[in-house]
Amino acid sequence: MVIQYELQHEQTVQAKTQTSQPGVVHPAYRNATYTFEHLSLQRGGSLGPVTLAYETWGTLNKERTNAILITHALTGNAHAHDVERPDDVKAAWWNPLIGPGRPIDTTRYFVVCSNVLGSCYGSTGPSSVDPRTGRPYGMRFPVITIRDMVRAQRALLDYLGVQELALVVGGSIGGQQALEWAVTYPELVRRVGVVAATAALTAQAVAFSEVERQAIMADPRWQGGDYAPGQGPTTGLAIARMLAMITYQSEEAMELRFSRRQARNTIVAPPSHAGDLGGRFDVEGYLYYQGEQLARRFDANSYLYLSRAMDLYDVSEGYPSLDTALSRLRSKALFVGIRSDFLFPAARVHALAERVRALGGDATYIELDSPHGHDAFLKEWQQMTDVLYQIIAD
Amino acid sequence: MVIQYELQHEQTVQAKTQTSQPGVVHPAYRNATYTFEHLSLQRGGSLGPVTLAYETWGTLNKERTNAILITHALTGNAHAHDVERPDDVKAAWWNPLIGPGRPIDTTRYFVVCSNVLGSCYGSTGPSSVDPRTGRPYGMRFPVITIRDMVRAQRALLDYLGVQELALVVGGSIGGQQALEWAVTYPELVRRVGVVAATAALTAQAVAFSEVERQAIMADPRWQGGDYAPGQGPTTGLAIARMLAMITYQSEEAMELRFSRRQARNTIVAPPSHAGDLGGRFDVEGYLYYQGEQLARRFDANSYLYLSRAMDLYDVSEGYPSLDTALSRLRSKALFVGIRSDFLFPAARVHALAERVRALGGDATYIELDSPHGHDAFLKEWQQMTDVLYQIIAD
Repeated sequence: MVIQYELQHEQTVQAKTQTSQPGVVHPAYRNATYTFEHLSLQRGGSLGPVTLAYETWGTLNKERTNAILITHALTGNAHAHDVERPDDVKAAWWNPLIGPGRPIDTTRYFVVCSNVLGSCYGSTGPSSVDPRTGRPYGMRFPVITIRDMVRAQRALLDYLGVQELALVVGGSIGGQQALEWAVTYPELVRRVGVVAATAALTAQAVAFSEVERQAIMADPRWQGGDYAPGQGPTTGLAIARMLAMITYQSEEAMELRFSRRQARNTIVAPPSHAGDLGGRFDVEGYLYYQGEQLARRFDANSYLYLSRAMDLYDVSEGYPSLDTALSRLRSKALFVGIRSDFLFPAARVHALAERVRALGGDATYIELDSPHGHDAFLKEWQQMTDVLYQIIAD
Repeated sequence: MVIQYELQHEQTVQAKTQTSQPGVVHPAYRNATYTFEHLSLQRGGSLGPVTLAYETWGTLNKERTNAILITHALTGNAHAHDVERPDDVKAAWWNPLIGPGRPIDTTRYFVVCSNVLGSCYGSTGPSSVDPRTGRPYGMRFPVITIRDMVRAQRALLDYLGVQELALVVGGSIGGQQALEWAVTYPELVRRVGVVAATAALTAQAVAFSEVERQAIMADPRWQGGDYAPGQGPTTGLAIARMLAMITYQSEEAMELRFSRRQARNTIVAPPSHAGDLGGRFDVEGYLYYQGEQLARRFDANSYLYLSRAMDLYDVSEGYPSLDTALSRLRSKALFVGIRSDFLFPAARVHALAERVRALGGDATYIELDSPHGHDAFLKEWQQMTDVLYQIIAD
């Protein structure tokens, strides 16, 4: 019996990569990988060797200047586009935006998407084997930052021969990376699209994120991060995902979708496996399903490290001031807020764009008029198409 | 060493009632109790005997018409006012609003506040002993509703000789009870103050609530609800409270209070007892503290039942329509929304007031202009004073 929830785009893509091992990518999507020896880390220490799993579409031009880097969201992976099923919206997480005749046109651009440092889809992360011990890093993995992720991507792009980026674009933690690219490597980034991301998270967003991490680390199966493959804290991770899914949507969207409707079935067990108390609302069944799906496919320690990198991100870190950091931008910059986003409030995205412009930068702000909250950049295909054409157009 | 957080009013009141047993009220606040034999429940079955712990202030007049019923919030208790320390804002949860010369004037009114059915401060709830088994009810406690709570309060008021209520007023789940009083017993309620409450929770609010409950029930110490006193799921309850505290505030309030400041100390352990990952934000330390405090003083099963009653509440239940239910009101009704409340959005409180008025009811809407979110009714003393004078004035 198939659960009929209208699935989150991100989830359904990932569902295709499910195997019994969280984070192991299905052979059909086997990514290329690039491994380099050493990465010095922003918060101290170093990591090595470092592997990034990646996919590319299109061809690098002779001048090596037509590359686009796409940065994925928290639990995403490198499979932003599916060549075999380009019209299947669920086959890859940004499929409708990528391909011939689409804004990220693979006949014009050399498009790269890599699984982020710290993740579990082929790139080095807490579930990778620590060469010093022969065992998974677990919580011995170092604290990594958005800047570390970007510096690792830089190494990959160097390896691929990319001279400069025609565009770097992503949403959420991907938007943080895009912004960081434009600040850290202003000379390499011609255009940047910062979608549903800000200069730094709000206290409220950090607070939600920490509740999620506590749910994971309170699960006895977490074992201080030293769980065996397939034996991880699936209950805690599912609870974390339930909360995250609320923060990715909005009151408005959840009301439109669920209202106070009762669940049509009670097939999916809640993370706690406890019985229902006075029935089950549809929104509850939906969240159980989303929690279960993520717990099957994602590594709990990666969740801790990546969500923490989002919290820690402050574009001004290492600079005398925010203005000093933002005045480094040389890119044509597009900042995209979402009206109903409460994780990265549109007003803050707008303020960031205004600040860049006040400092003399070429910054534009666009707001997606969507009820879908933070996740709108994975759902509002027409608006996102328009947005990407706007940034790409010369 | 004392943690210097500015405490939530509700917490500090409760901190005074702490003993080693969650829910056991400090002798200094020993409430009166009233026990009756039997309560038929809205969702089926019955409960008995039923005890309500309560406090009263002032004197019932000869006509028995000067009573005010105050209904407390989720984890609150009957101690709304402290006669010995009337000017100590932390000594009782609505202290500044109650007493001689204050809106709820104890020289004019007979003021009653009872610990709600299902709670753990002296009233019958899941931690009470089930007379059929001689053991605590645990999850064998029946599902209770806001209407059940109100019907239990009615029994108490009958016992106290109250003929009609000059006012029933409360916020949050207390506001749900106030509304339910006015709909269930229109002939008994002259005035009603529904603060930060609506006709029914949004899908988003239900979703947050369910994440909280899953955190509790996923704690191995929950034991299906059959934990021994003092051996309950304190980790899960602390995580639930962390999340709840976010929903009681607002992005604006948390930004004003915490922003991205680092914690000044790391004395309080997080619920998971795991180490910090890349430092600790002040907002995180604050939430750990709030979680720990609630886990010490409140019963986890009571949390499950009371929060579920909030979810299940729909004022129209048992009536052909919402309008049928609302048209029963005969009270002078004041609906109070809070600008920054995202758990009970002001727009929904406003719409409820408008609906009552459209149906011919005497309804007024006032909005608290506060950044403090849902909890503003426990913080904005001057605005709440004005509001209560407005509803009480004849």
